[in-house]
Amino acid sequence: MDTTTRRFNGPPGQEDMPYLLTPGPLTTSRTVKAAMLADWGSRDVEFRQLVADVRNGLLNLAGCDESYECVIMQGSGTFAIEAALGAFCPMGEVKTLVVANGAYGDRAAKILEKIGRPIVKIDKGDSAAPSAEEIAAALDADPAITHVWVIHCETTSGIVNPISDIARQVKARRKVFMVDAMSSFGALALDMNDGIDVMVSSSNKCIEGVPGFSYVLVKRDMLDMSRGRSHSVVLDLYEQWKGLEANGQFRFTPPTHALAAFHEAMKEHAAEGGVAARGKRYARNAQILIKGMRDMGFSTLLSDNEAGPIIQTFLTPRDPNFNFERFYEALRIRGFAIYPGKLTKRPSFRIGTIGKVDEKVMQGVLTAVTEVLAEMNVTDLSPLEAG
Amino acid sequence: MDTTTRRFNGPPGQEDMPYLLTPGPLTTSRTVKAAMLADWGSRDVEFRQLVADVRNGLLNLAGCDESYECVIMQGSGTFAIEAALGAFCPMGEVKTLVVANGAYGDRAAKILEKIGRPIVKIDKGDSAAPSAEEIAAALDADPAITHVWVIHCETTSGIVNPISDIARQVKARRKVFMVDAMSSFGALALDMNDGIDVMVSSSNKCIEGVPGFSYVLVKRDMLDMSRGRSHSVVLDLYEQWKGLEANGQFRFTPPTHALAAFHEAMKEHAAEGGVAARGKRYARNAQILIKGMRDMGFSTLLSDNEAGPIIQTFLTPRDPNFNFERFYEALRIRGFAIYPGKLTKRPSFRIGTIGKVDEKVMQGVLTAVTEVLAEMNVTDLSPLEAG
Repeated sequence: MDTTTRRFNGPPGQEDMPYLLTPGPLTTSRTVKAAMLADWGSRDVEFRQLVADVRNGLLNLAGCDESYECVIMQGSGTFAIEAALGAFCPMGEVKTLVVANGAYGDRAAKILEKIGRPIVKIDKGDSAAPSAEEIAAALDADPAITHVWVIHCETTSGIVNPISDIARQVKARRKVFMVDAMSSFGALALDMNDGIDVMVSSSNKCIEGVPGFSYVLVKRDMLDMSRGRSHSVVLDLYEQWKGLEANGQFRFTPPTHALAAFHEAMKEHAAEGGVAARGKRYARNAQILIKGMRDMGFSTLLSDNEAGPIIQTFLTPRDPNFNFERFYEALRIRGFAIYPGKLTKRPSFRIGTIGKVDEKVMQGVLTAVTEVLAEMNVTDLSPLEAG
Repeated sequence: MDTTTRRFNGPPGQEDMPYLLTPGPLTTSRTVKAAMLADWGSRDVEFRQLVADVRNGLLNLAGCDESYECVIMQGSGTFAIEAALGAFCPMGEVKTLVVANGAYGDRAAKILEKIGRPIVKIDKGDSAAPSAEEIAAALDADPAITHVWVIHCETTSGIVNPISDIARQVKARRKVFMVDAMSSFGALALDMNDGIDVMVSSSNKCIEGVPGFSYVLVKRDMLDMSRGRSHSVVLDLYEQWKGLEANGQFRFTPPTHALAAFHEAMKEHAAEGGVAARGKRYARNAQILIKGMRDMGFSTLLSDNEAGPIIQTFLTPRDPNFNFERFYEALRIRGFAIYPGKLTKRPSFRIGTIGKVDEKVMQGVLTAVTEVLAEMNVTDLSPLEAG
């Protein structure tokens, strides 16, 4: 397809770019990006203050009391995951129960295996939620398990796992509870004091910053005990923390512009009304999108009480005229970048409902989908059977 | 000091920020930063093309023939160093000679020790260049050494090590030659075909991009052999390469904005006249700075034939009225962020001569230094003796 013939209707200030309806990177506000129009010295007092603001702001946003610390790690969210697993699941007496219901649970298990730390896995496939009861049963069946790792919102399907219920079972058994809140933090309620010992998330998700770093919120005593446990120098969370505490500086060059953008994004998050308001906007996005797609005849993978407001999985239509690559490209021309499916068994695609997007954008993508289906001559939207 | 009383004279478009006269992050052009005013989908065709352009452009810039590959790694330069050492210095029959003459050589040695890979170290302190002859002698004395790691420009002092001479000795003995060209690549001539098997650098140095990623140029056959050797999932260079090759996408979210900025920075690097022109501008910066500082009475750590054009180390004056923190802050108020010293034995400070800065900026910092010395009533600029 000739890219010069494209029509565009992207966000204000970047009309030539599509809205990103994905699990991230996301569409961010013009003002968040404009915060990157300056070069900060990474050792300069003003930048160190900015970093301190970000660390404190994240602790506050997660409802952390004085017993928690925030450590920022360069790289994508997976860098913080590997750093956290390396620090808090040490060699020796530790065995980690990884609760997997999609690609991100599998990835955590893979990291633990790579660094030689013992694991047990509950594997729910890629679209079923784990129950707090089955996790409790797994812990009771194997007393050697000391740690539990769960994903808050698994973007493989978009499902939201019952973190509070799981926390209760895990803490009743005095295990360490670790949560990958990559795609949910800032939009779904999460209170660390409910029994979460470790939480990881990243800059380019629901706080609506740009990609470049990730962060770990963790009980200070766990950080203190993690000295010397990392398998890596750059991913050593303890040393990263000690560096930040010593002089407010990163050990190694931080992504200064991404941090400045995130600082602005946190202000905009607060101005919108914090976690509740952001979650409400995303939920409204999801509601409009799901209703509109169902009205056309699409089926969602998940029921309404399973699906979170982060990303929606739609089953690929049975109609032989439907072709995902053409569908994707035709939507992109209209200014909407959607996302391929990631299910292992059922053909599907995903549309994200997070980032600086609102119901007008959702109405826009629905209109575009209607146009594109007509253009492709797709009429039978009933789902393909599981492969 | 009350920050509201500050005078500023920063770069065009960011007058309220100081020029960054440091080893990085650096002052970048307005247009490089403006390239970050859009949100790219990391799986989108246009972003994948941008990444391909960057990878090919880096290979061309280093004079690589068809036998090399470029792999980009999220994070700062040290992330690429650890990734490269993990991939190319495997457990087993390998022993690495680390040639250290400053903090960055020490850091490479520390990483190898952390991941349990055997090393031998030549330690030149923090301001003496290693000679090709002593490296040859070390190789001849210990035939078990298979790999050599050298820093091109050691910003601890600013010294430039004789890479070509060293390459000749290393390759005559058929060892693997690895170069940390973090602070030099793009400004100092470097031809991979001269016998360099592995080279690492980062986004926020002499190409004048913003911080966020690093990269490794390496012989394809070495990458091929590195499968399964990494100690880490996120730092696994082989898997990162295979991901990029398979579909042009990163395995884990890339810093999209930093990559877009670098893409623009590479265009501006070429437009300026490539490595030769950029090196010439930096050399002119260094010349003006060193002459001006010497004219005032300052002493440089290095002689002119040792010092590179990247960063200059000045010895702390003996005058009891000189105080680095006051000196730094007073220069910063005038729009110039300089850098503390990093020598282990001699009190010093550093002024960088790289980034989007030219002789006018150098004249500006010299004027500011003159003013600040008068303000501090510092007259005796002869150096403090070694501690």
